Amino acid sequence: MTGPTTLRGGVDVGGTKIQAVITGRGGKVVGDARRNTPRDSDAAQVTEDIALTVTEAATSAGLRVRELVSVGVGVPGSIDPDTGTVLKAANIDGWGEPYAVGPALAARLGVPVGIGNDVTVAVEAERRLGAGRGVRSFLGVFWGTGIGGGLVVDGRQLEGRGSAGELGHVCVKPGGRRCACGLRGCVEAYAGRGSLEQRAKHESRKRKTVLFELAKRRERDTLTSGIWIRALEADDAVAHKLIDEAVAALGVAIGSAVNLLDVELVVLGGGLGERLGPKWLARLEKAAAGHTFFSPPPRYALATLGDQGGAIGASFLKPLT
Amino acid sequence: MTGPTTLRGGVDVGGTKIQAVITGRGGKVVGDARRNTPRDSDAAQVTEDIALTVTEAATSAGLRVRELVSVGVGVPGSIDPDTGTVLKAANIDGWGEPYAVGPALAARLGVPVGIGNDVTVAVEAERRLGAGRGVRSFLGVFWGTGIGGGLVVDGRQLEGRGSAGELGHVCVKPGGRRCACGLRGCVEAYAGRGSLEQRAKHESRKRKTVLFELAKRRERDTLTSGIWIRALEADDAVAHKLIDEAVAALGVAIGSAVNLLDVELVVLGGGLGERLGPKWLARLEKAAAGHTFFSPPPRYALATLGDQGGAIGASFLKPLT
Repeated sequence: MTGPTTLRGGVDVGGTKIQAVITGRGGKVVGDARRNTPRDSDAAQVTEDIALTVTEAATSAGLRVRELVSVGVGVPGSIDPDTGTVLKAANIDGWGEPYAVGPALAARLGVPVGIGNDVTVAVEAERRLGAGRGVRSFLGVFWGTGIGGGLVVDGRQLEGRGSAGELGHVCVKPGGRRCACGLRGCVEAYAGRGSLEQRAKHESRKRKTVLFELAKRRERDTLTSGIWIRALEADDAVAHKLIDEAVAALGVAIGSAVNLLDVELVVLGGGLGERLGPKWLARLEKAAAGHTFFSPPPRYALATLGDQGGAIGASFLKPLT
Repeated sequence: MTGPTTLRGGVDVGGTKIQAVITGRGGKVVGDARRNTPRDSDAAQVTEDIALTVTEAATSAGLRVRELVSVGVGVPGSIDPDTGTVLKAANIDGWGEPYAVGPALAARLGVPVGIGNDVTVAVEAERRLGAGRGVRSFLGVFWGTGIGGGLVVDGRQLEGRGSAGELGHVCVKPGGRRCACGLRGCVEAYAGRGSLEQRAKHESRKRKTVLFELAKRRERDTLTSGIWIRALEADDAVAHKLIDEAVAALGVAIGSAVNLLDVELVVLGGGLGERLGPKWLARLEKAAAGHTFFSPPPRYALATLGDQGGAIGASFLKPLT
């Protein structure tokens, strides 16, 4: 029996979409909605769109938002959970300055709101309900526009000073490619979808690739995960070269992380990670094995909660008091 | 007041020496002894020499071994703490096969014995009594014959599946130099004293270096930390080149570890690390900063317990029951 008092809203705010879910007992999804993240916008507008998406998700579950116990929001970037402030959001237009989204959204919805990091909440969802269920230690790898990471040890996520898990900025090539963060040789500079797209543009001047044709045909202005998959299926040489390089770089970073943490399991999620599926997971496992000290190495598995994982995990966030 | 019932023995078994201490309340060292690790020997002989060193340390404290509450032994390599078995010891002659040193030593001494990993116990000592005291999260870096690492998070060491902290096998150059572990590009292959010595031999064929003269003069068959320091002080070009390379490699590994763990503090210990001192710590900090995502970066400090740190930490080991 799921009474209204156990229902929670969860929102995953990404660079391209806002995904909201309503979860009941045991994290079961009972309603959901999705909107595009507004472009050329500001923090207040993004907050309004979050409110609308939650409201739509609640409606899809036959509820009013005010009946929810709480709403949790996962945001890419650094946050201050104690004040519900996004300090610096990555990949969201108009969200470069600190903004107290928690209090603003709570006032707008009339429901207590909690704020978390998008990767942290996605890892939490996999820990509670997904591939990491019942596992004492795992490394979560979220392969999307950037490379996100989360570390679960002794059944809970490591925080460090507040932001542990920056797998994307593990150095895989000293003095190598410049990363968006300013450092050189970060794995994200070789494997993040943002970086892959830049590299694909560069390569397309030298040789033929179907990547940008596919994007044009599907009226996309970025190379989505789906486009990369299709290009690989079409044996596109540029797509294969760049994804092979990405897998090699991720193998170095994951191998190094495994050597530090000695985890039982590596969970691969994120837009690209999940869509690439078991075949590429096996290739990634092989690439990482070449840099893994421990024998036996950890197990590898795909994240199981898909697109909704982040929103489900966000619904578990404790609201500000 | 320190009564006999609080006194514990601790032993650090290394490739060149066996260091024993007797600790009292609060880990205070009240006795110590040191012997060379036997060469061309076997596990039973090494165990006998451990027993003799503990006995000498107890004698120096005016005690009999049987008056000790327990004896803890830190060993380089992988161990099974539940059975007191060394599964595979690194750098100790004749200790290649699994050996139940815990039960053997307990029978020999008539005192309960606990077995731990040498780096783990050294990190534990720094956490309780040294540079990591009162710090919630730190990365311990032990720069000696190999590169050891330990991770303290939320006030306790991470174990993973039992062997977390293999900083020495973080990859700093994919496809790079072969490491003794079989992998390529591990930081230990660039910065471990064992690897530095091999490299120095190679370099000495091409250009002049005082490293091996210093060793000869001091009747050493290996390049000790002290010899490296003297060669640096003499502005030896080979020593400078190799230590610079080592610092660069350690900077990559430490930066990557910091990005994953978001620790407050990095503690540098080990024979080379401690002897190189504050000037080189500052250089290492600068090298790591070039690969560190977080701002502000963590603090850097030297380990404070010196040569006895491992043995002090070993004295805290829980004995087998």
